[in-house]
Amino acid sequence: MQIIERNLIEQKLNLPKIFQALKQGFIDFSAGLVTVPPVGHLGFDNPPGDCHIKYGWIKGDPHFVVKISSGFYENPKQGLPSSTGMMLVFSATTGQPVALLNDGGLLTDVRTALAGVLATETLSRPDSRVAAIVGTGIQARLLAEYLDELSRFDRFVIWGRNEENLNRCVQDLLAKGLNVVAEPDLQQLCAKADSILTVTPSEIPLLKTDWIRPGTHITAIGADAEGKQELDSEIFARAQQIIVDSRAQCCHHGEISHAYKAGLISADRITELGTFLSSDKPFVREPAAITIADLTGVAVQDIVIAKSVYQAITQQAVR
Amino acid sequence: MQIIERNLIEQKLNLPKIFQALKQGFIDFSAGLVTVPPVGHLGFDNPPGDCHIKYGWIKGDPHFVVKISSGFYENPKQGLPSSTGMMLVFSATTGQPVALLNDGGLLTDVRTALAGVLATETLSRPDSRVAAIVGTGIQARLLAEYLDELSRFDRFVIWGRNEENLNRCVQDLLAKGLNVVAEPDLQQLCAKADSILTVTPSEIPLLKTDWIRPGTHITAIGADAEGKQELDSEIFARAQQIIVDSRAQCCHHGEISHAYKAGLISADRITELGTFLSSDKPFVREPAAITIADLTGVAVQDIVIAKSVYQAITQQAVR
Repeated sequence: MQIIERNLIEQKLNLPKIFQALKQGFIDFSAGLVTVPPVGHLGFDNPPGDCHIKYGWIKGDPHFVVKISSGFYENPKQGLPSSTGMMLVFSATTGQPVALLNDGGLLTDVRTALAGVLATETLSRPDSRVAAIVGTGIQARLLAEYLDELSRFDRFVIWGRNEENLNRCVQDLLAKGLNVVAEPDLQQLCAKADSILTVTPSEIPLLKTDWIRPGTHITAIGADAEGKQELDSEIFARAQQIIVDSRAQCCHHGEISHAYKAGLISADRITELGTFLSSDKPFVREPAAITIADLTGVAVQDIVIAKSVYQAITQQAVR
Repeated sequence: MQIIERNLIEQKLNLPKIFQALKQGFIDFSAGLVTVPPVGHLGFDNPPGDCHIKYGWIKGDPHFVVKISSGFYENPKQGLPSSTGMMLVFSATTGQPVALLNDGGLLTDVRTALAGVLATETLSRPDSRVAAIVGTGIQARLLAEYLDELSRFDRFVIWGRNEENLNRCVQDLLAKGLNVVAEPDLQQLCAKADSILTVTPSEIPLLKTDWIRPGTHITAIGADAEGKQELDSEIFARAQQIIVDSRAQCCHHGEISHAYKAGLISADRITELGTFLSSDKPFVREPAAITIADLTGVAVQDIVIAKSVYQAITQQAVR
């Protein structure tokens, strides 16, 4: 078994390649080609924390992947990151472990942001340039960077509840050469955006339906557990197209779950990203309509990114 | 995170210490002090194989443990062991990984055999000396070795379906200085035994009730999945005491599951090993009665052995 540390993983990250593999991963997932058992969970009270085990296999693949990740939100008091993780790659023909990717949660951050870029790029108006990002954490930064690198978006407006965090996020992204400004008013943010990406842990809706301009696309990423919500449920009534990464997960605890459980959206209005991506029918956007993508994170993303990184590093090592 | 390889684990195995810790582990488990979520599973068809993820936490412990193990039964054709595994130790206060025990399944074998010794030593007649072992695989060998080292048993009679495997097993144990003979007739084996330990993958009962001498203890270890069975269900009717490692697991797919599902034994006749070990009332054996222990393997064993090995190795490293 190869032990692959975070430094090497960072060096060898091939974003465009992972982005393409991720697209195929979503297609395979929605086509029922991925075995994804229920997520394993261990909870802790004192200090509060969670461990999640996500694992699965794309049928026919030479490898399967197990990801163990955890979040302990008092860690920063000790100078430790609140979340961490590792991915293990195993042979699907012998069960032998082949690699431990000791990424400390990096690959989860990367695959989450890349899915955000994929959904946003797929659904936004072709003339979109300005992406508004609601949130200032690691996801907000990665989304801006990856949108800049991989999509048609090249201007960014960022909102954060905390002014200091907002300014730091903007400064960091400016230092990376991005065209980015802060916008401390959410309504103003919405007025400037072609697309909006929400990446907060909010438990109350942040975006009101009246603020959303006709033709806007929204990718909601923050709601990854029960009780979280970033969008006013009424926004869904205006949506021409609602996309989810996993129908089961999103209806259970995703951004759409509130509107879905309240009966505001019916099941037939919800399409999985993989189904949408593999559809023969071209998607024709109504000019004034809005579109929404709800991403909760699925194990196929972990499988795809672990495989991509493992392959990139072992091919490198062979040369 | 420390990467601890199998060689070092083998060197540092402190069997008597692990044996004591395991006893306490079973007590904690039956007292409801151990969080053990459902076992995770991934299945493969071509070649056939399984991956199991067992994990849990003893409440209040500084660490939790995740074990990933697999069995691919065509591996030996390629010169690989059919089963493998690893255990990961994490901090229960920060979620950080602290150690990877890359044991290749060794610790699973060890903890399984130690539980067999514990149940057998606990329930056998005090004057027992002769242990009969049904099976010739790795578990048969470890049981003989560990009984010799840790229990009152010092003479061993071994049965195997395949003569060559039987002779090899006996030769190997003789070479280790054990007092051991082969017995190719199962009925004769039972006639010579104070206690019998069954460790085969049999799917049809091997031991008949008429063969079992009064006063015999039986520890059944082979039945660890649905469809497996080593004992004639009628043996249970004669049992004064029936012990299981996990009530839920054993009633579902353990040795007792056949008799239990057929209504031959009622739930009130089944006691968990941990409950039995922590009982205030001394167990008084009726001279002619037989006792039976059914072991299916529980995650607390993995937690205990991983913790013990991790502690032994890191204390060593500090000195």
